[in-house]
Amino acid sequence: MRAGVDLGGTKIEVLIVEGERDVRGRARRPTPTEGGAAAVVEAIAATVEEAADDAGVDGGRLTGVGVGSPGAVDAAAGTVGFNSNLAGGWKDPYPFTDELGRMTETPVRVANDVDVAAAAELELGAGRDLPSFLAVWWGTGVGGCVVLAGKQWEGNGAAGELGHTVVKLGGRLCPCGRRGCVEAYAGRAAMEARARHLHERGQHTKLFDLMEKANKDRLTSGVWERALKEDDRLAVELIDDAYDALAAACGSVVNLLDVDGIVLGGGLGTRFGATAAERIREKMRPHIFNPTRDPAVRPAELGDDGGAIGAALLVR
Amino acid sequence: MRAGVDLGGTKIEVLIVEGERDVRGRARRPTPTEGGAAAVVEAIAATVEEAADDAGVDGGRLTGVGVGSPGAVDAAAGTVGFNSNLAGGWKDPYPFTDELGRMTETPVRVANDVDVAAAAELELGAGRDLPSFLAVWWGTGVGGCVVLAGKQWEGNGAAGELGHTVVKLGGRLCPCGRRGCVEAYAGRAAMEARARHLHERGQHTKLFDLMEKANKDRLTSGVWERALKEDDRLAVELIDDAYDALAAACGSVVNLLDVDGIVLGGGLGTRFGATAAERIREKMRPHIFNPTRDPAVRPAELGDDGGAIGAALLVR
Repeated sequence: MRAGVDLGGTKIEVLIVEGERDVRGRARRPTPTEGGAAAVVEAIAATVEEAADDAGVDGGRLTGVGVGSPGAVDAAAGTVGFNSNLAGGWKDPYPFTDELGRMTETPVRVANDVDVAAAAELELGAGRDLPSFLAVWWGTGVGGCVVLAGKQWEGNGAAGELGHTVVKLGGRLCPCGRRGCVEAYAGRAAMEARARHLHERGQHTKLFDLMEKANKDRLTSGVWERALKEDDRLAVELIDDAYDALAAACGSVVNLLDVDGIVLGGGLGTRFGATAAERIREKMRPHIFNPTRDPAVRPAELGDDGGAIGAALLVR
Repeated sequence: MRAGVDLGGTKIEVLIVEGERDVRGRARRPTPTEGGAAAVVEAIAATVEEAADDAGVDGGRLTGVGVGSPGAVDAAAGTVGFNSNLAGGWKDPYPFTDELGRMTETPVRVANDVDVAAAAELELGAGRDLPSFLAVWWGTGVGGCVVLAGKQWEGNGAAGELGHTVVKLGGRLCPCGRRGCVEAYAGRAAMEARARHLHERGQHTKLFDLMEKANKDRLTSGVWERALKEDDRLAVELIDDAYDALAAACGSVVNLLDVDGIVLGGGLGTRFGATAAERIREKMRPHIFNPTRDPAVRPAELGDDGGAIGAALLVR
């Protein structure tokens, strides 16, 4: 049995996996809000122990622990750096696998969070029969992973920044400080900032009332979904802009790489599933240059567990 | 000795190559303006014969003829279809290698024009020491070719359409009928249409006077160069827009694929060479997400002969 860890901005999700994808136990804790990398690693170790208990196995007996992490992950060195969101943030590469390995007394491997989720879709999910595809991870930010002839393309380790594809020169401000990135239109953080700005300037929207009713302090995927159901005009407009931006970026990738399809995951991608896939396909089609191409757009199959299941694949 | 054919919209350029890149003979003819694929193939056969004469070799004694062609090239089938520019145009796949082989009595191979030029840069030119790069062919249109870990990525045969990367949603009209493509800003055909439109609406420019002085009927790379030297305001603006669009597309590809560099060729790319490479690098840098990346941008090394030299590599 192996542990797969999905390290996110708000929560640490650990699954104990047997075989390829049989889940034997699970545990979840909030991601520490301060203390940097050391606090994060300590919280992961505790969550792994708890998940192992849930599976009825001794933590030290696990074959290994695989972690999907945001930030600048160096899988070969086992380090994670440039993480501005987690636990108050840290910049320098932290010896992630060494420290977590010491605490859990098992081998540890770490990789980029979108890459492990894409690996799970490639081996076990929506990408199984797609020789080449683009994974689009649509959530707080927009991540990507290119799979070519059955293999993830990592470049020199920094590939996959689909969110910072320029879709509108001189366009909307992105949380990264640039203008016109996909993420400026489609990232949940950017969409929330935009909604807040327009709301403060007097534009009517139910988004923030729905947020309070749901007892949240940010516009979660669930809040966006609710607002769309109630036909909130601002929500409809902003989500439409997001689809436009995602579709343009996907179309451009299809034109350049002639991949066989798109697999859509992430918090928002999973929440809106087949509807989102269909909207992106519709909006992408007019951008595709070769008239004989009509690539599939599919929702990720492994849902919210995909990240942790993919992480567990790291320590097979 | 092998023949390499660079089939272009206005001319057929044939080199007789020995070894990797020693040019032993050459010939050039205008591309037929009517008669479709059959007329093009006939003209190629005559130009090959002429180039072989120039090299002092009998045409039938050549090891083979390699052709870099625009249009929808199926290299495996040896066909070329969807060619709207050459000889009045044709749509259905034409048995290109069979027909040309019959006329020249040698083995013939055909591949996409940008791909063969990129192959020449990869083996013999600016891409020799770049494990992964994006080739940008900036001319009448904007073509591309992605080289990953030393190999050209072809997708299912339709990869490389960098010119139809969306850099401005809802932006300028592209000759392809879409909006906001790179080619709408950077393609020579689109730039000329834009200049003509603005000139007719009263905007001052020397571009068309320079064109007439040079005895041309279109805005060639040379005409653009001259106008820039004379600091023609419209020319400066349009070329600046082109650099913005090319740089955004290149930056997006670097973010997604983490390639080691960009190699810049094509009619305009070759004409403006190192200056263009430097301008694109400057304008690309702000788009690059990972602060440790600063990919090289280099002019193609083989210049105007690159296409034919690359084509000759097809029949080694």
